[in-house]
Amino acid sequence: MFESRSLHRRRFLAGTAAGAIGAASSVSCVSAARAQAPAGDAVKPEAKLEAKPLPGYVAWKDPNAFIVHSNQTVETKRGLVGSGVVTPINRLFIRNNVNPPPDSIVADRDAWRVEIAGVAGPRTLTLAELKRMGLASVATVLQCSGNGRKYMQDALQPGQKISGTPWTVGAAGCVIWSGVPLKAVVEALGGPVAGAKFVTGTGGEELPAGLKPKDVIVERSVPIATLDTVLLAWEMNGEPIPLAHGGPLRMIVPGYSGVNNIKYVKTVALTEAETDAKIQAASYRMHGVGEKAGPAQPSIWEQPVRSWITAPLEGGAAGRVLVTGVAFGGTNAVARVEVSADGGRTWTDAPFVGPDLGRYAWRLFALPLDLPAGTHVLVSRATDAAGTVQPEDTAPNGGGYSYNGWRGPAVTLRTA
Amino acid sequence: MFESRSLHRRRFLAGTAAGAIGAASSVSCVSAARAQAPAGDAVKPEAKLEAKPLPGYVAWKDPNAFIVHSNQTVETKRGLVGSGVVTPINRLFIRNNVNPPPDSIVADRDAWRVEIAGVAGPRTLTLAELKRMGLASVATVLQCSGNGRKYMQDALQPGQKISGTPWTVGAAGCVIWSGVPLKAVVEALGGPVAGAKFVTGTGGEELPAGLKPKDVIVERSVPIATLDTVLLAWEMNGEPIPLAHGGPLRMIVPGYSGVNNIKYVKTVALTEAETDAKIQAASYRMHGVGEKAGPAQPSIWEQPVRSWITAPLEGGAAGRVLVTGVAFGGTNAVARVEVSADGGRTWTDAPFVGPDLGRYAWRLFALPLDLPAGTHVLVSRATDAAGTVQPEDTAPNGGGYSYNGWRGPAVTLRTA
Repeated sequence: MFESRSLHRRRFLAGTAAGAIGAASSVSCVSAARAQAPAGDAVKPEAKLEAKPLPGYVAWKDPNAFIVHSNQTVETKRGLVGSGVVTPINRLFIRNNVNPPPDSIVADRDAWRVEIAGVAGPRTLTLAELKRMGLASVATVLQCSGNGRKYMQDALQPGQKISGTPWTVGAAGCVIWSGVPLKAVVEALGGPVAGAKFVTGTGGEELPAGLKPKDVIVERSVPIATLDTVLLAWEMNGEPIPLAHGGPLRMIVPGYSGVNNIKYVKTVALTEAETDAKIQAASYRMHGVGEKAGPAQPSIWEQPVRSWITAPLEGGAAGRVLVTGVAFGGTNAVARVEVSADGGRTWTDAPFVGPDLGRYAWRLFALPLDLPAGTHVLVSRATDAAGTVQPEDTAPNGGGYSYNGWRGPAVTLRTA
Repeated sequence: MFESRSLHRRRFLAGTAAGAIGAASSVSCVSAARAQAPAGDAVKPEAKLEAKPLPGYVAWKDPNAFIVHSNQTVETKRGLVGSGVVTPINRLFIRNNVNPPPDSIVADRDAWRVEIAGVAGPRTLTLAELKRMGLASVATVLQCSGNGRKYMQDALQPGQKISGTPWTVGAAGCVIWSGVPLKAVVEALGGPVAGAKFVTGTGGEELPAGLKPKDVIVERSVPIATLDTVLLAWEMNGEPIPLAHGGPLRMIVPGYSGVNNIKYVKTVALTEAETDAKIQAASYRMHGVGEKAGPAQPSIWEQPVRSWITAPLEGGAAGRVLVTGVAFGGTNAVARVEVSADGGRTWTDAPFVGPDLGRYAWRLFALPLDLPAGTHVLVSRATDAAGTVQPEDTAPNGGGYSYNGWRGPAVTLRTA
């Protein structure tokens, strides 16, 4: 892994120098990872991706805000998450593991039923019943476990391969969820059964015919400690959750990566063991590149501390720029963020701006900088409340998960 | 005024009793004010209003979320502001004093120009230039000065009249605005001129022909102390501000009522005196019913402490209900909210839920209550951080402004 990282850095530095000398235009916006490839290669794939139209089930979203990787993977363009802390739903990324259920499940939202198991008095409750049991609201960063995978893929050694969508930074947003605390529901049903160690949620997707259900079902287990924070949510950003984002009811595990937040949740069980569904047992595991994933490896649960710059993404006139970005700490609050305009050699603390929506939300930062004419490599580095500092890079892993390096999303730009 | 208030209370109590005896249905949701009128009168006007379609310029909004009073006054239905603290734009009320400018002004947002005057180095700046000068984000309650006017109108004595849209509680929402602090702009231009006492903003509306400009121009002055908090905002809830809400650029005065937040702002001046535009000098003043408004009377600036219930709005089965609502303190944070299920005789503290977006935002509250079979009058009462308690009622004033009584928006419901 260390070899690979060193190589990445060497290639990165070489790429930056080449960009500085070779760029004909005064405006060049390329990520550090892309800077290392010949210009032709770097530009074409993204241009092709952007041209794909939004899939029909999310056609109501802002058509100009996305890079459509596939029908199930739709990435928010960098810089379009807005400056209001909360990401507008019509610009929020999409990632599904299985096709969404039909629209009919949101025709009568209050009639949606969720089975609560692994409690003293198991019951199936309607959404209407849940709404009378309590109300809480929490802002969380919703982020695909593979957000930033492209930076890992770009740093691989010859012969290595990481499959999966090459997300850069756009498989993430900050959302306010409203619903009932799972804890209130569990307590109303007599509390957890003895020995329960996990909260296991099952999605209501219609499973494709001809496949073993365990191979495709979206069923994830998270540690029972999350019982203190899990929400059964029916609203996002004040609106009923759209089907594409898991409505009518989604299980939200604050601070945990996207896959753990079960859409159209139909069962929530407190269980002794993790589910043996493939998505839990043999996917979303932290394993080496080329190794097989299995239940003994760490599961992709808590999101690591992370930040990236959202503006400027293009060069221009030398002089004053306002460097803005987002920073978050997963299950910890983010405590600090620094910005560098020289690729990480020197750092300046950047102030947070806007309301603090709590430990699971991201914070915006904004730092004015005076950039002389030349090439600048802008990066940001966050530190969480526990003192964990965002690393320069993240060692590649087999699934391309949990990238949180500050080097990958570097913005290289020229000012003149 | 005292006479009028006493009368209102007496009529209210009589109305409630009549409702308890006379209601044939087990489900009745009427405001206290409406309860006093015969059922036929109470129902018809609102049913008629709801039937009006959304005006074309806001046809993109949720058609089911509004009561359309007129082309310029569109009220959010009670209970539809959501449970996510921030009000979705597609459910946010609309109130214009003059027709909105043409769409063309948002075709190239960054080219919008705003003149900054009353500073050492006055200049006209483009929105693109403003974006380089700083970034801040603030959550504020945006509320029409006349929100709740209906409760005043319903309490008038024979012969008295208050003109204006009969808003109940739906001319309000909580919005996250992003833009540059006006203070940063003023400082960059050398600071205020000597003697400046007001911040005066002018809207970019096209004025109707044939009228004296001063009679129709939207130009408001607020005390210069607001220079510490005023934002020149280009985003709301993370999106470019729609034209209907004042895009491309709106002057936001946190804690001040709606009219002070100038849409399509084209001039911001630090001035010695208040503008003599009619909307400042002879409107939005605190004056007695039937009296003429003038500049000697207090201007409608800071919003008073206020709260109301958002659910339940309908009766049903006796038993557990979750009483939810919103509470805010204008320029002060809201510190406490209490709920009563017996029309204000006894009170219980209601916990706040969800993130605290700062002193100018509203907070959500949620209190579980067990309601036996019968008639219940639900009310809420907020207290701000300065200790000011929301009053039972607000003495009527000539413009029907700044209603903040807890009595008016009472919810009367029957459980069986």
